[in-house]
Amino acid sequence: MKRTSIVQTHFLSAHDVATIITKTGPAAALRGMADYIQEDFLRWHDFDKCARVASHSKDGVIELMPVSDAKTYAFKYVNGHPRNNRFGLPTVMAFGVLADVDTGIPELLSELTLTTALRTAAMSVVAARALARPNSTHMALIGNGAQSEFQALAFHHLLGIQEIRLFDTDRSATEKLMRNLKHTGLRLIACDSVAQAVSGADIVTTVTADKTNATILTPELIEPGMHINGVGGDCPGKTELHADVLRGASVFVEYEPQTRIEGDLQQLPADFAVTELWQVLGQQAPGRTSEAQVTVFDSVGFALEDYSALRYMRDAAQRLGMGQLVSLIPELADPKDLFSLIRPSPEVLLPDVSDIKELFLAV
Amino acid sequence: MKRTSIVQTHFLSAHDVATIITKTGPAAALRGMADYIQEDFLRWHDFDKCARVASHSKDGVIELMPVSDAKTYAFKYVNGHPRNNRFGLPTVMAFGVLADVDTGIPELLSELTLTTALRTAAMSVVAARALARPNSTHMALIGNGAQSEFQALAFHHLLGIQEIRLFDTDRSATEKLMRNLKHTGLRLIACDSVAQAVSGADIVTTVTADKTNATILTPELIEPGMHINGVGGDCPGKTELHADVLRGASVFVEYEPQTRIEGDLQQLPADFAVTELWQVLGQQAPGRTSEAQVTVFDSVGFALEDYSALRYMRDAAQRLGMGQLVSLIPELADPKDLFSLIRPSPEVLLPDVSDIKELFLAV
Repeated sequence: MKRTSIVQTHFLSAHDVATIITKTGPAAALRGMADYIQEDFLRWHDFDKCARVASHSKDGVIELMPVSDAKTYAFKYVNGHPRNNRFGLPTVMAFGVLADVDTGIPELLSELTLTTALRTAAMSVVAARALARPNSTHMALIGNGAQSEFQALAFHHLLGIQEIRLFDTDRSATEKLMRNLKHTGLRLIACDSVAQAVSGADIVTTVTADKTNATILTPELIEPGMHINGVGGDCPGKTELHADVLRGASVFVEYEPQTRIEGDLQQLPADFAVTELWQVLGQQAPGRTSEAQVTVFDSVGFALEDYSALRYMRDAAQRLGMGQLVSLIPELADPKDLFSLIRPSPEVLLPDVSDIKELFLAV
Repeated sequence: MKRTSIVQTHFLSAHDVATIITKTGPAAALRGMADYIQEDFLRWHDFDKCARVASHSKDGVIELMPVSDAKTYAFKYVNGHPRNNRFGLPTVMAFGVLADVDTGIPELLSELTLTTALRTAAMSVVAARALARPNSTHMALIGNGAQSEFQALAFHHLLGIQEIRLFDTDRSATEKLMRNLKHTGLRLIACDSVAQAVSGADIVTTVTADKTNATILTPELIEPGMHINGVGGDCPGKTELHADVLRGASVFVEYEPQTRIEGDLQQLPADFAVTELWQVLGQQAPGRTSEAQVTVFDSVGFALEDYSALRYMRDAAQRLGMGQLVSLIPELADPKDLFSLIRPSPEVLLPDVSDIKELFLAV
């Protein structure tokens, strides 16, 4: 039964993933990722779930996000450091792994910085398809940083948004977004305030980065029928919505135990009712029930979305022949003989022997 | 202030680490790792600690083990699949990361399969130096699988063990160990039973792999003054020591909240008194207090040991110029412009445009 184990790990670098997305086309990649997310959310009960494990420090947080079904285990490493831009670094950086549950072999190691931006946007659209008014065409996009183009493209290509009104406290971020998306056919309008951007919007997406209890959206800005896609309130002490915005809306979440800790929901008592999105997708709970209803997707990012995103990237990489094999795990002729990796061959015995002598002198 | 971020990750493959250990010499590597562990355990309160996050399946477990101080974050991915040997695979495979707490950058990605075997053995010796009788010379080693040679070498080189009596239900594993260590100067004696191996030993090391509540050591085998280094009972439902062995001994652990779940300690009520090892190392609690006292180190493997081991490997790799740089994180000229990674250059605009058309048709 014994064989030399083949345990090389398929590695996708940041450059590999950028190439995969460019070759696939961002619209098709977003659509594919949304399909994978939808598919996985529909089998919610197959997964062993837990809230992510966060390590907080003065300027940020580092998190591990594991999830598993009976066949595949996934985890993501992700940081959130709002001040990173000052050092020329992304505020969010990530990578992740898919592993085989039967053996524990890490089969795929992939960048997830770029991938996270896509999966978050795809997740936002999966939620909005169930929660926003049908035929929504106008969106406000508050926060025009690293993730904003992906949100804009996802809502344009997958949901039919035609006009996006933009606001960021950093005007150059808005200008960057407009430059990046000028060939897409989207009408992009830079606004001078949150109020101006939000007015008349079918959907309001907030994707800001400050690690503070901010109130980007206050109750007087909210119009009947709006869907609020709240992406940036995702960490204890990091919120975007005034608590009364949540109180006046139907609130939907990814995984309730995690969102109670991390979402805008952290501002409300534990008995404030919310609905997990998988129930809506699986038609076990209603989504939007009227034209005038205000809906909030209090998105924090859940491990299952990364499971879906990693699965998408693995399949896309195989299709396109991208990536390389790396030896994260040693190959052993006899699995009980780990020592064989460092067993000295006769001619190199000497250093080890001198080592031992040195030790006898030291003892 | 903006600069192009340099965020490449230093990667150490399984082969790199084997080379580092071979060049350093296993004895010196074990000694170095024991020093790093001791140093880190002495500043126990600097660390943000938690029990590892385990995902259990039918045949095994996959775990994430994070730990952090104010400067460096570490985590290990590790599996435990006792049946893996049947497929020619190691039962335990691992890799891990060191990251910068201030920015979240993953600075080092390293194999940890081989490293874990060394760090576990180094940890065992750090504990035994404080708990075993001084001048211990005889050890029993029960379980002669992948980790056993490292235990033998660590106790020989760092603690002065001269004779090791071996037992494994798989005789070929014992023979493999004897072949691997025949040049070390250790007296190695293969035994026919646990009882024969244990009789007269100063130290008993158990390092078996079955995911069962086994009773490798029963009370009648225990002699006054013995130190028991229990390594293989490290998972719910996976124990090696009869509960009465613990009841008749002074029990020392790495991190109490984790050991209560995973260690042989899982068999005893929550109020059974144990001592965390850092207290003994820091002279805040007694270790061995008499010649006749039986001591147990109920080792399960704690994240801090991997922090120390990764730190050791990083320093050793830098000293020897080993490893390579990989792009786990994208490099961005403007950190808010993640989209630049997939921004089409003018001549490749067409595919994206056709993509959009395709979508309009689909909507």
